[in-house]
Amino acid sequence: MKIDGKPYRSIWPHADGRTVEIIDQTRLPHEFAVLRLATMVEAAHAIRVMQVRGAPLIGATAAYGVALAMREDPSDAGLARALDILGKTRPTAVNLRWALARVGACLGNLEAAGRAARAWAEAAAICDQDVAINRAIGEHGLGLIRDIAARKQGGRVNVLTHCNAGWLATVDWGTATAPIYLAHEAGIDVHVWVDETRPRVQGALTAWELGQHGVPHTFIADNAGGHLMQHGEVDIVITGTDRVTADGDVANKIGTYLKALAAHDNGVPFYVALPSPTIDWSVRDGLREIPIEERAAAEVETVTGRGVDGRLATVTVTPQGSTAANPAFDVTPARLVTGLITERGIARATPEGLGALFPESA
Amino acid sequence: MKIDGKPYRSIWPHADGRTVEIIDQTRLPHEFAVLRLATMVEAAHAIRVMQVRGAPLIGATAAYGVALAMREDPSDAGLARALDILGKTRPTAVNLRWALARVGACLGNLEAAGRAARAWAEAAAICDQDVAINRAIGEHGLGLIRDIAARKQGGRVNVLTHCNAGWLATVDWGTATAPIYLAHEAGIDVHVWVDETRPRVQGALTAWELGQHGVPHTFIADNAGGHLMQHGEVDIVITGTDRVTADGDVANKIGTYLKALAAHDNGVPFYVALPSPTIDWSVRDGLREIPIEERAAAEVETVTGRGVDGRLATVTVTPQGSTAANPAFDVTPARLVTGLITERGIARATPEGLGALFPESA
Repeated sequence: MKIDGKPYRSIWPHADGRTVEIIDQTRLPHEFAVLRLATMVEAAHAIRVMQVRGAPLIGATAAYGVALAMREDPSDAGLARALDILGKTRPTAVNLRWALARVGACLGNLEAAGRAARAWAEAAAICDQDVAINRAIGEHGLGLIRDIAARKQGGRVNVLTHCNAGWLATVDWGTATAPIYLAHEAGIDVHVWVDETRPRVQGALTAWELGQHGVPHTFIADNAGGHLMQHGEVDIVITGTDRVTADGDVANKIGTYLKALAAHDNGVPFYVALPSPTIDWSVRDGLREIPIEERAAAEVETVTGRGVDGRLATVTVTPQGSTAANPAFDVTPARLVTGLITERGIARATPEGLGALFPESA
Repeated sequence: MKIDGKPYRSIWPHADGRTVEIIDQTRLPHEFAVLRLATMVEAAHAIRVMQVRGAPLIGATAAYGVALAMREDPSDAGLARALDILGKTRPTAVNLRWALARVGACLGNLEAAGRAARAWAEAAAICDQDVAINRAIGEHGLGLIRDIAARKQGGRVNVLTHCNAGWLATVDWGTATAPIYLAHEAGIDVHVWVDETRPRVQGALTAWELGQHGVPHTFIADNAGGHLMQHGEVDIVITGTDRVTADGDVANKIGTYLKALAAHDNGVPFYVALPSPTIDWSVRDGLREIPIEERAAAEVETVTGRGVDGRLATVTVTPQGSTAANPAFDVTPARLVTGLITERGIARATPEGLGALFPESA
């Protein structure tokens, strides 16, 4: 999508053909900086410290990470080491493991000499496929927004989203945002309630990308969404996800479950947008089976933003002597999910609903 | 309760007999500073900018505000002006109007010359009564915590609370915290999950006062409570409230409704602690009838905390060009409330439940 009028992807190969570039998302939305990744260790670091974040972009970055590793050491041991290090960067994201398995499978039977070029091509293919998938998700989700706009006779359609499942979290378009961008480009009056998403305030990324692309939006505290739904101010909730089980349970950023409860209580449709690699067919009961990443307490204890001098600054909100807990994801039970927007269409959040769209996997 | 080992109230008359002192809660928990209020305008300012906050403390401060006004202008016009200015400082809090009505009724039939002393005495009486009420709330709520501790055979009792309904929000003890302080003093192993409570991060006040008094606690993002309840980490939710309707609907800090939904979904008891002046017998349907204060967008767009130099600093989290909305309260429907802990006992959140405890008002 556009930044200051210029089209970007969130990851792209540099013209040198040997390195890859990303946008440093730890500095957004306050500073726009491009980072060049030259080694596998740099790629792993970028994933771990969330210079890249969002399940699809993590997968794409990991794939390029393998390609970078193959330039350094294309041996079987080098490949195994790269897959191991990259695979341990973030425990919750299933796309990470999917992308690594895909690239690993490509390289396993190749001579070492051919691995770097093959991995590079495969990473590029993963990126192009992600763009096509998200565009397709957008087309399917657009139908939902069109229906609401028709029902409201052209009145503004209010979408609530949580975290950043925008194009910054994918390679382009985003998952939850793809229907929004397409609706906006189709001339529908769409407005987005953007949850702040503490502790890491990924809502600021969503606000930034919507603003750069010209989509009307309003930033709100995570506490506000239920109240807005009680008063008819939300027509539809669309979030992304880090992992969906075969039964339709949804692991996503901490707090998603609370918004799903509020949507259910107020008759607001709650949709989750996802590329199908996000579905973990090996897991059924999300609450019992999906491990939840506990991240550093410092993320909760502090907030980073623009200081009065316009530069990035961090403040500590907790009193000295108090500690914090930081579960980074939660699981929304399938019973609270109206539908799953995939590249193949919209599925009910049930084994049957998912199985009908993906019979080869279910 | 104690600060650094020394007992405090949240508002107290200065030894000069003409001014009143408060703790500047806009600087807590990072700086501890006492402010002296010498005029009604200063008292109104303290309420408006939330140097004092919490329904009972707002009422007590407004009462002292009338006393300060009567020293300046004890005429009927002066009294009317004070009641008007103080009454408009915060639209949601019913205690504010209750305290002003009580002091106003005392003074109406008095000669101007006697009003200042009478108002001063009445404000002091309101404070003492608040302390007694909160202590009684604590005794009733303690029974709930004792029962959980017994069921867990001495295992840790985990309480979740939202916003600050602690002693800082009252004159002493707090409402939601009174049962916690009494349980702690009774030797029960009680631990508190403290919601951050964006936008104004009143959870930091709760963490501070619990820490100063030695109560184990953990600070969490507002998004985390539902996940903790899904995993059995919360035994009881206790919040305060700014207004309860005759039907038992609860207006409280934005986000309370989301925690009530999560408690309901997970079979966790959800209690609201309140002094009976918080009950607005004139209102039944909280969702339709209670006006919700929309506060400044800047509260959402910024976060204040300790900077790296240890001094108060403010950062902006939203990107330039994005705007925010800031509904400050929400309404939790009575159907989600397990019980209302009052100074007279625990009522069901129904007209019958409240009427049985307060037959003279219902």
